[in-house]
Amino acid sequence: MAPQLEPFFKQVDDLSGSFIDRLRKAVAIPSISAQDENRKDVFKMAQFLASELENLGAEVEQRPLGKQPGKEHLDLPPVVLARYGNDKSKRTILVYGHYDVQPALKEDGWATEPFELTVDDQGRMYGRGSTDDKGPVLGWLNVIEAHKRAGVDFPVNLLCCFEGMEEYGSEGLEEFIQTEGKEFFKDADAVCISDNYWLGTEKPCLTYGLRGCNYYSVSISGPGQDLHSGVFGGTAHEPMTDLVHVLSKLVDSQGNILIPGIMDLVEPLTEEEKSLYPGINYTMDNLHESLGSETSIHSTKERTLMARWRYPSLSLHGIEGAYSAPGAKTVIPAKVIGKFSIRTVPNMESEDVNKLVFDYVKAEFAKLNSKNTLNVWLQHDGKWWVASPKHWNFSAASKAVKQVFGVEPDMTREGGRYVF
Amino acid sequence: MAPQLEPFFKQVDDLSGSFIDRLRKAVAIPSISAQDENRKDVFKMAQFLASELENLGAEVEQRPLGKQPGKEHLDLPPVVLARYGNDKSKRTILVYGHYDVQPALKEDGWATEPFELTVDDQGRMYGRGSTDDKGPVLGWLNVIEAHKRAGVDFPVNLLCCFEGMEEYGSEGLEEFIQTEGKEFFKDADAVCISDNYWLGTEKPCLTYGLRGCNYYSVSISGPGQDLHSGVFGGTAHEPMTDLVHVLSKLVDSQGNILIPGIMDLVEPLTEEEKSLYPGINYTMDNLHESLGSETSIHSTKERTLMARWRYPSLSLHGIEGAYSAPGAKTVIPAKVIGKFSIRTVPNMESEDVNKLVFDYVKAEFAKLNSKNTLNVWLQHDGKWWVASPKHWNFSAASKAVKQVFGVEPDMTREGGRYVF
Repeated sequence: MAPQLEPFFKQVDDLSGSFIDRLRKAVAIPSISAQDENRKDVFKMAQFLASELENLGAEVEQRPLGKQPGKEHLDLPPVVLARYGNDKSKRTILVYGHYDVQPALKEDGWATEPFELTVDDQGRMYGRGSTDDKGPVLGWLNVIEAHKRAGVDFPVNLLCCFEGMEEYGSEGLEEFIQTEGKEFFKDADAVCISDNYWLGTEKPCLTYGLRGCNYYSVSISGPGQDLHSGVFGGTAHEPMTDLVHVLSKLVDSQGNILIPGIMDLVEPLTEEEKSLYPGINYTMDNLHESLGSETSIHSTKERTLMARWRYPSLSLHGIEGAYSAPGAKTVIPAKVIGKFSIRTVPNMESEDVNKLVFDYVKAEFAKLNSKNTLNVWLQHDGKWWVASPKHWNFSAASKAVKQVFGVEPDMTREGGRYVF
Repeated sequence: MAPQLEPFFKQVDDLSGSFIDRLRKAVAIPSISAQDENRKDVFKMAQFLASELENLGAEVEQRPLGKQPGKEHLDLPPVVLARYGNDKSKRTILVYGHYDVQPALKEDGWATEPFELTVDDQGRMYGRGSTDDKGPVLGWLNVIEAHKRAGVDFPVNLLCCFEGMEEYGSEGLEEFIQTEGKEFFKDADAVCISDNYWLGTEKPCLTYGLRGCNYYSVSISGPGQDLHSGVFGGTAHEPMTDLVHVLSKLVDSQGNILIPGIMDLVEPLTEEEKSLYPGINYTMDNLHESLGSETSIHSTKERTLMARWRYPSLSLHGIEGAYSAPGAKTVIPAKVIGKFSIRTVPNMESEDVNKLVFDYVKAEFAKLNSKNTLNVWLQHDGKWWVASPKHWNFSAASKAVKQVFGVEPDMTREGGRYVF
């Protein structure tokens, strides 16, 4: 440890009570973005964050995002922007976090009141948002405070971007970031997001990649309205039959994508990348535990992690327009829409993937000789992201983890974004 | 026409005004079985029917069916039972009908008030239940009245069974019939149901057969809970993938059932049966009109009607547990249940069909080498029914149609029961 950090770490220890108190206040505000009646609490939480940041000497703005699309009686919560430090000789780090939370009721199975921070006899803290994501957000405030109290110069300029709609699809954030990329965020040399999960429960991780997602719909229609299978069964081409045949041609039970050409787009595995996997703190038991079953496809952790992080996958999500309730109904649905998505990885470009998917789906449908009508289209796409795990920002984060936790972090990728 | 029927038909003409008035009174009672708030009207309609029958000299009972299953705050409407005549030298005919109706609102697109009988300038009558099934039910009352007024001996003993829950799955009726088969209905020599449709709009039909239905569920489960496809896609066997593969093996896009052995159970087509089809008043245009599309499988009316009446068909109805809403969700469903049914015909015995289905579905799933778990079971079955179109009851009905409409009726079968 650099000697000048000693007083900083002493302050961290000395201030731990007030840090916990700050988290307690934050947890007590039920800033649930998905519930109309709590929208005022989301605003209250933004104000709490802004005040705390101002008290620490940051320049703070609460940026409005307008009305909520589809719920125009509600204002979107503001993005809390803050700048701490403006020294041209230092690097500038942009940090992201969110101050809204998911709903929580004691009746849902909580052992403690969800909106009261409860500390158990081992010092573990329970409360809605304590880890996702109020705790990590307040961590940035705490680190500023400990530097100030210790009289240690803050080593970087910090830009904060804290949103209040993350648990509801980050409404309004994308456009905001696009605009502010050239404005408020323009000085950022690197970005740090603290809103993901460790692989297990013992070792922190640093995430250097994320799969993308191309989400498709394929519709098949025929009759003018739903039909009764007793009256029409056997006389007309059934859209559901055709759709099930088409969907069955996309992926096999071992997870192999059957669309020709898709795997040719995947960046080959290098020896260097391969060497990163054996050391990762993960076992097949971890997978089985998170699955809640032993229905894994691969037998080794290396192949499993590669399947999750660096190879594409194709999942069938469901069918719109068919009978989906419990019980029995003898309908022949007139129009059904299959939903599937492909998790994309380097170097799959969305347009190339789309062309392969569309051509193949149409060709497979043509083989059926059905008089029904097929359409296939992209619902949305989000690009994959990969950084170098050797970038200075990762090196710095790695040293910090070693200092605090006493272990090298796992260098991980993620299988997909949580908002998708 | 037998000469003794002349005064009867004269009475029918003379009474037409009061017959229409009787229908007007019935239509005005909104006996909607599916809506709680109209249950009192269903009872009122039962009372109206019972009174009218008593006034005509029938012995009438209103038989309670107890509470409505799943809606125990409601009493099921009674079955109105009636006997008219008890002459051992006459045949006894059991007639079935229902006095409840489906919901109807003017806003749904009605040109007239649905619960006011409206007669247009061509004498056509509009009103909810006027054809399904209050009109046909009152027909039996009218025919008694016209015989009485004409002083013509009623040629049969008539047993009536009029229910009030037909539009809601005939709740309670099956057990009632099972019991009364040896009691109230025990004298019946033949049954007559007036509650089906002509093939077109010009020619009456007599129905001599009905396909049965075996309804199946096939469930595939794996993970302990729904998974996020970004995190788990590619690492675990997905139940939805497996299910789509299994369902795709059941039927092809041309409607051919792919389960080995099923077609071997079907009674071969005889020349005699084949000869019934060409004369039937039906065209491919009729099919296309009712489909609302030209997505027919077969090119001739004969093959189409055989597909509908005398060959089995297999329809895929939908999937429970998968994502079925509009929009996009990247879920990997943990457990999905496919629903399909087979329309059965002579001589397919339910147990034989079940064994073929279960064995085949399990064998196809085994080929997938998936670690997921499959179950397949019968949800319910209803047996097909076929009578001889040369039975005396059909001959009598045929003669009556010829007398009144001036044409021979189509001898038809039905593709399936409407309650299924």
